[in-house]
Amino acid sequence: MAASYFESQVRSTATFELFVRTLPENRGYLVAAGLEQALDYLQDLRFRAEEIDYLRRHPMFAHVSPAFFDYLGEFRFTGEVWAMAEGTPVFQDEPLLRVTGPIIEAQIVETYLLSVITFQTMIATKAARLVEAAQGRGVVDFGTRRAHGPEAGVLAARAAYIGGCLGTSNVEAGLRFGIPTVGTIAHSFIMAHHDEEQAFRDFARLFPENVILLIDTYDTLRAVEKVIRMGCCPKGVRLDSGNLADLSKEVRRRLDEAGLRDTRIYASGDLDEFAITRLLAQHAPVDFFAVGTALVTSKDAPALGGVYKLVEVFEEPAGGPRKLPRPTAKFSADKYTYPGSKQVFRSSGATGEYTHDVLACAGENYDGATPLLEGVMRDGRRTCSAPPLESIRERVRGLLPRLHPTVRELRNPAPYLVQISQQLAGLLEQVRNETLR
Amino acid sequence: MAASYFESQVRSTATFELFVRTLPENRGYLVAAGLEQALDYLQDLRFRAEEIDYLRRHPMFAHVSPAFFDYLGEFRFTGEVWAMAEGTPVFQDEPLLRVTGPIIEAQIVETYLLSVITFQTMIATKAARLVEAAQGRGVVDFGTRRAHGPEAGVLAARAAYIGGCLGTSNVEAGLRFGIPTVGTIAHSFIMAHHDEEQAFRDFARLFPENVILLIDTYDTLRAVEKVIRMGCCPKGVRLDSGNLADLSKEVRRRLDEAGLRDTRIYASGDLDEFAITRLLAQHAPVDFFAVGTALVTSKDAPALGGVYKLVEVFEEPAGGPRKLPRPTAKFSADKYTYPGSKQVFRSSGATGEYTHDVLACAGENYDGATPLLEGVMRDGRRTCSAPPLESIRERVRGLLPRLHPTVRELRNPAPYLVQISQQLAGLLEQVRNETLR
Repeated sequence: MAASYFESQVRSTATFELFVRTLPENRGYLVAAGLEQALDYLQDLRFRAEEIDYLRRHPMFAHVSPAFFDYLGEFRFTGEVWAMAEGTPVFQDEPLLRVTGPIIEAQIVETYLLSVITFQTMIATKAARLVEAAQGRGVVDFGTRRAHGPEAGVLAARAAYIGGCLGTSNVEAGLRFGIPTVGTIAHSFIMAHHDEEQAFRDFARLFPENVILLIDTYDTLRAVEKVIRMGCCPKGVRLDSGNLADLSKEVRRRLDEAGLRDTRIYASGDLDEFAITRLLAQHAPVDFFAVGTALVTSKDAPALGGVYKLVEVFEEPAGGPRKLPRPTAKFSADKYTYPGSKQVFRSSGATGEYTHDVLACAGENYDGATPLLEGVMRDGRRTCSAPPLESIRERVRGLLPRLHPTVRELRNPAPYLVQISQQLAGLLEQVRNETLR
Repeated sequence: MAASYFESQVRSTATFELFVRTLPENRGYLVAAGLEQALDYLQDLRFRAEEIDYLRRHPMFAHVSPAFFDYLGEFRFTGEVWAMAEGTPVFQDEPLLRVTGPIIEAQIVETYLLSVITFQTMIATKAARLVEAAQGRGVVDFGTRRAHGPEAGVLAARAAYIGGCLGTSNVEAGLRFGIPTVGTIAHSFIMAHHDEEQAFRDFARLFPENVILLIDTYDTLRAVEKVIRMGCCPKGVRLDSGNLADLSKEVRRRLDEAGLRDTRIYASGDLDEFAITRLLAQHAPVDFFAVGTALVTSKDAPALGGVYKLVEVFEEPAGGPRKLPRPTAKFSADKYTYPGSKQVFRSSGATGEYTHDVLACAGENYDGATPLLEGVMRDGRRTCSAPPLESIRERVRGLLPRLHPTVRELRNPAPYLVQISQQLAGLLEQVRNETLR
């Protein structure tokens, strides 16, 4: 497409919006995440010589002129970006990102932006659900080994932290993003020692303040006795198999009897928000839930239907005087998109609870409502520094409770009201008539 | 764990095996993939100064001696690896990878290996299912935008090609792995032009041999008339919405009437193996299925239960004379693992069809059966060069038909027989008695 725009001298400026058409099953909201990596990408995107050579030699490009490859060598993203801040609750049809720039530039970045933003948004949302289910107990990310490749594990750890997890077992994510890391031991560590008690002692000696001992390798209750015999108070014990509700109660009882009241119980083993809910309904005295597969793959809803749609075209090239844009929309058998550059306005009630959103044209204004899309990049450069990850996480903890509890239900949540502004509805009709006439 | 092994002077050599405990729902087999990236990782793994500094300053590591960080600075993987060749059909409990080395080294690599191998294995398997459903029609990967981050999209494209896809829309995967790339246009390309016909003409002029025109942006059947009016014979047209069975028949009829018999029909839009099966049952004249989300996320089964388990320990350090290993296994409430280094033997019937596998101890031998695990790395160096991706893909096309059709069923496949050798069963009992006594 880029080559065709180039060769056909299409130099228009265009606006694309990235949004999710329909929330996945059992999701009443999403938590926006991934903007940071999107902006890094836009700011740093270059085509390396090796990449351009590959395209030049590609049979598909046989009729493309050398000038296009020269253009790729000089390529920079020079556009403007508006976005929802990471950590913002977001709903169907609401743009997470709005990109305006020369159409070639704005088109080339589509796939990367979709993949990095929808993935992290999906995982931050899943984390928020797990944290909701845990009712104040801690949730930690133990999922990297089941992530869709090692890099997905690192991005998932970041998104999980945004969504409310306390930390991650992914040390690379600790280094790259400053996320607290949470470690424990594997069954292999126990099995590599001649006996379980020696393994416990070796580990506790080296990590006296931080030891979390895995106690289900052979016999959980016998392992608890070994922990007690150590004569120290480990930070935690972890259960990874068996009936977690029954075991956690018995383990808690024995630890308490031995005076190890400060030793916390970690549970793991194919947990998700529904398993956590069941465990807490059974009053399982679990302090921390370590969640892996379900979290880092968003297993029950492993893809968001994210799209990146052209919403308006300025026929004249960037830099020239802008005339009115031509709004665009797609109307095929079973889908349509809203035309034009948009803004999302969020309204709150007297006690701060969110009442509804309005999806509006970018130029509109709603007194008392908060516009959610903010300018974050101009001329291909960030216009503000990235907020600390910690503050994004705090935002989520502050904003989610403003959604009505029925919207936050883990099953069949109530839909949150997203109204279409009169002006946007009118524009949709106008474009529909012009397009399909 | 590495720090504890180091400080406690545990210098044993250990063997770990990577396998999948249970095949996901509706999977009768898996297609092994990802070995190449696993071996790259093992051969190149180093700790950078920045990483070591991060660990050194980490509060968790307050009691760890400087010698450990010096050790990390010198770290190399020096072990031995046996593996199933990529493209091999594999079943529950069968090791895809067996790693033997100093226990610290073999432990540190666990998470990366699991994530890179189980992800690609899952996607190669999904691709094989899609290809099976397509009954000889082509399947192409259009999924990157929905992958779990951009890098997952590249790895998914590789695995999809191994599993039988014809190509990918991911150009980076084309560059890195030599996979054929397949391009088309997006709705935005049509919408950016003043009219659809002009967009078609612009694109066809530049890519006369390769043009695949997207015809559902506004009105599919009117778009077909525009394609016909162009007076050339485009390589293909793509349908992305609506009733694909009805539309493809009508589009085919009109193309044929106009003499465009060589123009192929591509279908896309939330396809999976079941949708493809339904379309073909309705005799939809679709030539190529472009699959996105379902393929690159393996949406119906988005995680494989891959594990990496310690199976034996040689108590003496590497380099010394090896005594007999101590086989290890885990026996907790609801799980157990098979002890000892293993080999998988596959037997065939008279016409080449696979009859059963035997999961055996590494030293065993079965006349006439093929051992599937091969040595691929010694002293941390590859012992053979990587096979071309094309030949891995050909292997899959050759080996899968040797599985009984009931094992390849897309729903509720028959289980393939994996026997446990007498020797392995005996070893399991022996270790169980020793461990739980």
